[in-house]
Amino acid sequence: MANSNATPLHMIDLILKKRDGVPLNEREIGFVAAGAAAGTIPLEQLSAWLMAAWLRGLSLGEIRALTLAMRDSGEKFSPARLGKQAVDKHSTGGVGDKTSFLVAPLAAACGVAVPMISGRALGHTGGTLDKLESIPGFRTAMTLEEFEKVIKECGAAIVSQTPKLVPADRVLYALRDCTGTVESPGLICASILSKKLAAGLNALVLDVKTGSGAFLRKQEDSEYLAALLVSTAEAAGTKTVALLTDMSQPLGTTAGNFIELVEAVDLMRGKRPTESDGDNSDLRELSLILAGWMIHLGGQASTPEAGYARADAALADGTALRIFLAMIEAQGGDASVFKTPKIFHRPGATEVVKAWERGFVAEMDTTALGWAVQRTGAGRENAGEPVDPHAGIVFHARRGAWVEKGRPFATIYATNDELLAEPIAILKQAIRFSGNPPNQVELVGKIFTRDSAENYLHDHVR
Amino acid sequence: MANSNATPLHMIDLILKKRDGVPLNEREIGFVAAGAAAGTIPLEQLSAWLMAAWLRGLSLGEIRALTLAMRDSGEKFSPARLGKQAVDKHSTGGVGDKTSFLVAPLAAACGVAVPMISGRALGHTGGTLDKLESIPGFRTAMTLEEFEKVIKECGAAIVSQTPKLVPADRVLYALRDCTGTVESPGLICASILSKKLAAGLNALVLDVKTGSGAFLRKQEDSEYLAALLVSTAEAAGTKTVALLTDMSQPLGTTAGNFIELVEAVDLMRGKRPTESDGDNSDLRELSLILAGWMIHLGGQASTPEAGYARADAALADGTALRIFLAMIEAQGGDASVFKTPKIFHRPGATEVVKAWERGFVAEMDTTALGWAVQRTGAGRENAGEPVDPHAGIVFHARRGAWVEKGRPFATIYATNDELLAEPIAILKQAIRFSGNPPNQVELVGKIFTRDSAENYLHDHVR
Repeated sequence: MANSNATPLHMIDLILKKRDGVPLNEREIGFVAAGAAAGTIPLEQLSAWLMAAWLRGLSLGEIRALTLAMRDSGEKFSPARLGKQAVDKHSTGGVGDKTSFLVAPLAAACGVAVPMISGRALGHTGGTLDKLESIPGFRTAMTLEEFEKVIKECGAAIVSQTPKLVPADRVLYALRDCTGTVESPGLICASILSKKLAAGLNALVLDVKTGSGAFLRKQEDSEYLAALLVSTAEAAGTKTVALLTDMSQPLGTTAGNFIELVEAVDLMRGKRPTESDGDNSDLRELSLILAGWMIHLGGQASTPEAGYARADAALADGTALRIFLAMIEAQGGDASVFKTPKIFHRPGATEVVKAWERGFVAEMDTTALGWAVQRTGAGRENAGEPVDPHAGIVFHARRGAWVEKGRPFATIYATNDELLAEPIAILKQAIRFSGNPPNQVELVGKIFTRDSAENYLHDHVR
Repeated sequence: MANSNATPLHMIDLILKKRDGVPLNEREIGFVAAGAAAGTIPLEQLSAWLMAAWLRGLSLGEIRALTLAMRDSGEKFSPARLGKQAVDKHSTGGVGDKTSFLVAPLAAACGVAVPMISGRALGHTGGTLDKLESIPGFRTAMTLEEFEKVIKECGAAIVSQTPKLVPADRVLYALRDCTGTVESPGLICASILSKKLAAGLNALVLDVKTGSGAFLRKQEDSEYLAALLVSTAEAAGTKTVALLTDMSQPLGTTAGNFIELVEAVDLMRGKRPTESDGDNSDLRELSLILAGWMIHLGGQASTPEAGYARADAALADGTALRIFLAMIEAQGGDASVFKTPKIFHRPGATEVVKAWERGFVAEMDTTALGWAVQRTGAGRENAGEPVDPHAGIVFHARRGAWVEKGRPFATIYATNDELLAEPIAILKQAIRFSGNPPNQVELVGKIFTRDSAENYLHDHVR
C-alpha cells in the first residue's frame, strides 16, 4: 500500500523496471495511473511505458493493481441507493452487436438494476451510444445524478462515460490507439474493468467475441482475456462471468445505427424478419442467454437457465419493450420514431446488392464487413467525427445459407451515392461462397466463472 | 531507396512492425528520422518506437540506415576546403576525460585538421563544452563558417552542435533520455555517428570506455558497440578505429571544469603533478595513443606508433600548447587565465578529504565518483542548467596506490559549503581499500579496425 514516508517515485525508474521485465508493485502501478489521470507524467513517458508493458507483458498482480488504480482515478457511481443489485453486460465489440438494447430492459424487467456506461463506434465495431443517438433528442451525456434517476424510474439507463469517470483510462486509451499498444490482454482488461468497476456493479456479464469479426483474432487470446477479466473483476469483489460467443458473422440482420435499434425493437414487439429479410435467431438467443446470466448473478434466478426463462417471458409479454421505450423517453429521446420507423429512416442512398455467385455462404470476413458498414457513413475514421444515423447494411443471408445468384444478398444504406461503391466492393471481397455447407459454429463457446477462470490462468501462465 | 510513387507511410504501421520484430527497410527508417527532425511525428509515437527498438533491437541494416538518415536530416559541414584530412576523436564519455584538449592540438600540430563538434555534461560524465566555457569569453556556439575559419587558422576547433546540424538526433536524444531508451547499441551508434559523419570527417578515432565509470558497464556491450561504430562509419566511407580504454578510475588527477583544463595545459607545458598531487601518466599516455591514431589515419604517419612519436615530439617542443592557446583566443577565450590559474580559480568552498582507511586503493566506483563531481556543482541534473566553472574534485591517489590513513585523498571544490557534504559522502562510498593490491588493468584493451570489427559482428550476432 502507498506509504507517505516512502521515497518519491520517478516515472523514468518505472519505465526502466518494466523495460527490464521487473514487475511493478502496487504503489508504482498506482503512481502511473494517477500520473496519467492528472497529466503529471509526460505522454512520451507513458507511451514508452505502454510499449514496454505490451512487449514484456503485465503480471496478474500488475493487472489487478492497474485496474483498481484506474478505477480510483476519478469519480465513481454508487448504486447502493438503487435498492437492487446493479448488473451490467459488456461486449468486447462486434458487428451488428445490439444485444445491449435487449438485455438492459430484459434484466430490468426481472428485477435487477442496469447502470450501463457504454462506448462509441471505433474501427470496425459499432458503438451503442452512436446507435442510441440516432433517436431524435436522445441524450447519452448525463451526470451521475441524472443516471441514477433514470435507473430508479426505468430499471436501466445507457449513458456515456462522464468526463470525470476513470480519467486515467481516457488518457491511456487514446495513447494506446496511436502507439500500437492496443492488443495487450492486461491493458485491455484494465481499460474495460476500470470503467465497469467505477460504476460500482454487484455483478458483470462479459461477452467476449471470437471469430473473424472479433478484436482478438486468435481463440487462445480471447480465452485468456476472458479468464483474466473474470479473475480480475472477482478479485475486486464483483460477481463475474465471461461467455465466449461467435462473431464469425454479424449478429442479427442489421449493422449500422438506427436500423439496429429497429431490429431490436421489432424483436421486443415479437416481429421477426421474413425469410427474404434474413434471420436473427442468433441475436434473440444470445440476448436471452446474456440476460439470463445477468438475472441469475443479480439474485433474481437460481440458475442462468432460470434467468433465461424469466427473460424469455419478459420478451414475450411486452415488458421489455415497455421498459426500453420508457428509458428512451427518460433520456430525452422521441420513442415515437419506432411507431413508423420506415418513415423516419431516410438514408441518403440505397442499393440492393444481389448475390454475385450461387452457393452456400461459406465464410464471412466479419471485420471487413464492419469496415464496409463504417464506410457507408455509419462509423467514423477518427474519434470525434459525426456518424450518419441512417447509414448501415442489412444482411439478407447468413453463414451456411444457400443463395441463388441474383437473389438480394444485402441492402446498403449510405450517406450519399458516392459512399455506395466502397462498402459494396469490400462486401464482395469479404464473402466466400462454396458448393459445400460450412461447419457449424456454436453461438456460445466456453464460459468462465471464478473457479474456471482461476484454473485457466493457472494452466496458461503468460 | 525512396520511391515517390510508393504508398504513403504511416508511423503507426512502423511502430507495429518494430514491435513485432520485423526490421524496417531504408525508406521506412528514413521516414522516422525525417519525421523526428521535422516534428511531423508526434513524440508519443517516437517514444513508443524507441522502446520497441530498444527491446527488439535494430539490425545492422537498420542501424546503418538510421545513422545515414539522421546524418542527412539537417545541414552538414564540408571540410574539403580545409586542404587537409579532417580527423576527429570521440569518446563514449568518462570521468576526468580531458583528452580532447590534448589530442586536438597534437593532431593539428602534425598536419591534420580537427573539426571537433562536442557535447555537454550529462549524468555522471563531464562535457568538453562545459569545461571550455569555464574560460572567460570562450564561445562554443559558432556558425559553420566561423568553425571553418578557426580550423584554417589553428588546425583545430571545438564547438557545439549547431541548431541545424543533425536535428533528428536532437529530438531522439532528448526523448531517449526521458523514456529509458538510452543504452541501446544501435541507437547510441546512430546518435554518435550521425553527428560525426555530418562533420564530413575523413577519419575518426573512437575511445570506447570500459570499466566502472563507463556508460555501458558490461565488457561485451562495449566491445559490441565499438565494432558496430567502426563497421557503420567505415560503411559510410570514413576510416575508423575504436580503442577500448580503461575507465575503472578517473582519467588523470582532476574531474570538473576549469581544473581539467589546467591539468591538460600543465601537461602541454611539461609540468607534471608532484607525488602528493597524484599521477596523470594515464592521461598523457592515452592522449598520445589517440593522437597517434588520428595522425596515422589522417595520412601523416605510416603507423599509429609513428603517429605517437610525432605527437610526443609536438607535446615536448611546445607546439601543441601554442596551438591550443591560439585556438582558445580564436574562439574568443581569454587564454591569459592559464598564466596564473591559481588566481583565476575561485571555488566557493574547498575541503581536503583525508584517507579514512589505510591500505591499497582496490576499487573505485567511477560512475559514483562522476556523480560526486556533478554534485559539487560542476555538472547538471537537467539539460540547460548552468554549471559551476570552478567546481570539481582532485584525486590525489590512484587505483593500486598505497595510502596511509589521514593522508590527503581528494580535494573537493564545491559551489558553496552546502554542496560539500554530498560529494564527500558519495566519495567515501565509492572507494574500497584492501590489504592487497588490485589486479592491474590495461589502459588500452581491444582495438577494432574495419576487418576486426566485421569479424566481431559476424561472430556476435545480436
